[in-house]
Amino acid sequence: MERGELKPMDAEQLREYGHRMVDFIADYYKTIEDFPVLSQVQPGYLRKLLPSSAPVDPESLDQVLKDVQTNILPGVTHWQSPNYFAYYPSNSSIAGFMGEMLSAGLNIVGFSWITSPAATELEMIVLDWLSKLLKLPDEFLSTGQGGGVIQGTASEAVLVVLLAARDKFLHRVGKNALNKLVVYASDQTHSALQKACQIGGIYPENCRMLKADASTNYALSPDALTEAISHDISNGLIPFFLCATVGTTSSTAIDPLLLLGRIAKENGLWFHVDAAYAGSACICPEYRPYINGVEEADSFNMNAHKWFLTNFDCSALWVKDRNALVQSLSTNPEFLKNKASQTNMVVDYKDWQIPLGRRFRSLKLWMVLRLYGSQNLQDYIRSHINLAKHFEGLVAQDPRFEVVTPRLFALVCFRLVPFQSDLDLANKLNHELLDAVNSTGKIFISHTIAGENHPALQAAKSTDSESNSGI
Amino acid sequence: MERGELKPMDAEQLREYGHRMVDFIADYYKTIEDFPVLSQVQPGYLRKLLPSSAPVDPESLDQVLKDVQTNILPGVTHWQSPNYFAYYPSNSSIAGFMGEMLSAGLNIVGFSWITSPAATELEMIVLDWLSKLLKLPDEFLSTGQGGGVIQGTASEAVLVVLLAARDKFLHRVGKNALNKLVVYASDQTHSALQKACQIGGIYPENCRMLKADASTNYALSPDALTEAISHDISNGLIPFFLCATVGTTSSTAIDPLLLLGRIAKENGLWFHVDAAYAGSACICPEYRPYINGVEEADSFNMNAHKWFLTNFDCSALWVKDRNALVQSLSTNPEFLKNKASQTNMVVDYKDWQIPLGRRFRSLKLWMVLRLYGSQNLQDYIRSHINLAKHFEGLVAQDPRFEVVTPRLFALVCFRLVPFQSDLDLANKLNHELLDAVNSTGKIFISHTIAGENHPALQAAKSTDSESNSGI
Repeated sequence: MERGELKPMDAEQLREYGHRMVDFIADYYKTIEDFPVLSQVQPGYLRKLLPSSAPVDPESLDQVLKDVQTNILPGVTHWQSPNYFAYYPSNSSIAGFMGEMLSAGLNIVGFSWITSPAATELEMIVLDWLSKLLKLPDEFLSTGQGGGVIQGTASEAVLVVLLAARDKFLHRVGKNALNKLVVYASDQTHSALQKACQIGGIYPENCRMLKADASTNYALSPDALTEAISHDISNGLIPFFLCATVGTTSSTAIDPLLLLGRIAKENGLWFHVDAAYAGSACICPEYRPYINGVEEADSFNMNAHKWFLTNFDCSALWVKDRNALVQSLSTNPEFLKNKASQTNMVVDYKDWQIPLGRRFRSLKLWMVLRLYGSQNLQDYIRSHINLAKHFEGLVAQDPRFEVVTPRLFALVCFRLVPFQSDLDLANKLNHELLDAVNSTGKIFISHTIAGENHPALQAAKSTDSESNSGI
Repeated sequence: MERGELKPMDAEQLREYGHRMVDFIADYYKTIEDFPVLSQVQPGYLRKLLPSSAPVDPESLDQVLKDVQTNILPGVTHWQSPNYFAYYPSNSSIAGFMGEMLSAGLNIVGFSWITSPAATELEMIVLDWLSKLLKLPDEFLSTGQGGGVIQGTASEAVLVVLLAARDKFLHRVGKNALNKLVVYASDQTHSALQKACQIGGIYPENCRMLKADASTNYALSPDALTEAISHDISNGLIPFFLCATVGTTSSTAIDPLLLLGRIAKENGLWFHVDAAYAGSACICPEYRPYINGVEEADSFNMNAHKWFLTNFDCSALWVKDRNALVQSLSTNPEFLKNKASQTNMVVDYKDWQIPLGRRFRSLKLWMVLRLYGSQNLQDYIRSHINLAKHFEGLVAQDPRFEVVTPRLFALVCFRLVPFQSDLDLANKLNHELLDAVNSTGKIFISHTIAGENHPALQAAKSTDSESNSGI
């Protein structure tokens, strides 16, 4: 491109460049195993390779793609590599990629219904579809008082429901009572809850991260919860929010929703269920029992970008009372007023989330559901779990290693067996093993601490590929 | 695709489907003016057209694209149409689209440096580039104590700096003083500030949205600010945050940064500058004076997705003290610990934002800067402003209309001249005109209220195209 010829939306140039980028990405997938899966660059590597200011004159796509190949890809940790077993499965898919492309092409900003009715309505419909696949209670459907919404991440999902609950309670007891509001969860809960509390001004000393240990397979104990609530009430505090997790980050532990939900109900707490990772598995009838009790929940979250073939970001959140979200998060400036919104005929998702603007993210989830179909998606989940079972068997056969917590889904927590119960030494050796494995660039695994200083390495069946090498 | 043949990451299928989607999008751009720019569908239209549950068996890309054409596109409000003049310019571009494609293809989740070093480092570098183009003070560069970060939206940008300021003050005066913290801004400030205050628990009665009227061209008066601060201090309150805007949503008013910044400094307030829209223009030397005084700011925000050819979402935020963000927003769970982070050798952007996960958004901004170059980008801004000047001239020549506020950038606020100063009637007639214009589907404009019930229609030069029709 030359100076003075800026045609940023020329259809034929988009076609030409787009085809070249498709080929670049397809070639990347073909060669993805040639890269170290965990990037081996040193901090600050890129600044040495790039100029210190933007170019005055335009550069060619050739130059840019050459730089991507030479300078960017070595600094990428390849989440889509079949050798990637860290954190969580993060599969993109062709269907998800199609949705991202179309969303970027339309490039609408769907804060209100009127700014693109299809964006709002497709999101409502597709989240109803997913809700039905998960057999969530009808109250989560958009046809009643509730509904689903796509958030960017589970962090945002737990934040918006925490804020909705906070404001509902403060409306009742007065905003000066913020210092009395108490949150409950197990200490295995994702750090996103702690962050949401920080943001919402919940006092750190009022965040009860109740200890969960091996005796409950790291699940939150209903008895411990009841006791904590009673204690807080007797001290004049106000219990208001319970977060249960189905599939914790450390060990995929499952909090007992049915019992916890009853306690939440008896005490009038907002009950949120975080199934960010394991929610996807619950589209299979054999795994659906893990979320029995979700009927008691006020809100439920699963990340389609984790284990549902939908490109990041796509975190599905359902609530039973959408009005609670709107009460907490709505603003209504003049420039956004319009007939459809004023007459309450439509949903304006801006009032269900932190940001104002939002992308057309339902397209990618819609494409995943349509291009793959629910049966294939179930089989895909099952194939991952079978691979994890296989790996678990291999670990169990090897006397040097042990499986640390029961494998429930596709995450296996294992470690080098501690020598003479010396946990410090075991910790050190496992960390050295982790570093040694990851520094090869051949596979990438992550780690956690289960309970009292029990180190554990994590290998999650992470990425599907034609060439399933790796574990 | 048939059941049992799920190959979600097959490179050759990605290539085939990708090429088809590129052609679909290029054809959309070619025919974009055939659609009503503002969607004319009725609420609930889509539910009537789609099935009530997800398919069990896979469907073909042909079927899906046919449905996009038949069912989705009629419900799209075409932000990229040359006939779109509402809200703000929202140009996507081929370069931005390339960046989105590549980001979706790599599909990394860059919360920490180690999860893709290139994602963190390119973001730091590209925001340094942009900072230099805007001639921001050196303290905003990542090479010192500050740095830039890409947020999703200006709403998130103002929220994170408000939280950083809140926690900095509460750390000093004790968290029980939340009810004493006071925020200042003009009443022309974007509603995102109000929402940030709601989220952060700032008391509504402590949000000073100071009146700005025609006497200052809707800019915040430094005298009014000084008076409000004095009054609050004498009442035992704690002023802590000032938000100034360069280019307000209603009328592109410009708050006087230099004077406001001095007042903020004298009183120890965090000073945030929201230049979400007009910031882009400041890469031109002739418009840079509008942000003179930014040297006094603690944080500065401009949306590259508004007027800088970068596909939504890409909101650039700079801070002078990145530690303030990290203090407020960091969490450090075991599973995210890694050598690079623990030794403070790297930036982990998870601690600069609300969500944990984040996309590789710097790619699109990098591609825009490289494929277009700064000179072309300046000329592009100038061409939009010239078109707005032309329209302003046409309005001024027509005795039925008047320009309501001075045109500074590419937004023209105009209205039907009130008959015998009857503002209610004028309001009604202007609303009728707005509805009449927008319901044609030929152009889409938005509206505002300037000052005391002064209605105004807004036409922003919004979208570039080979076929510049429209106003």
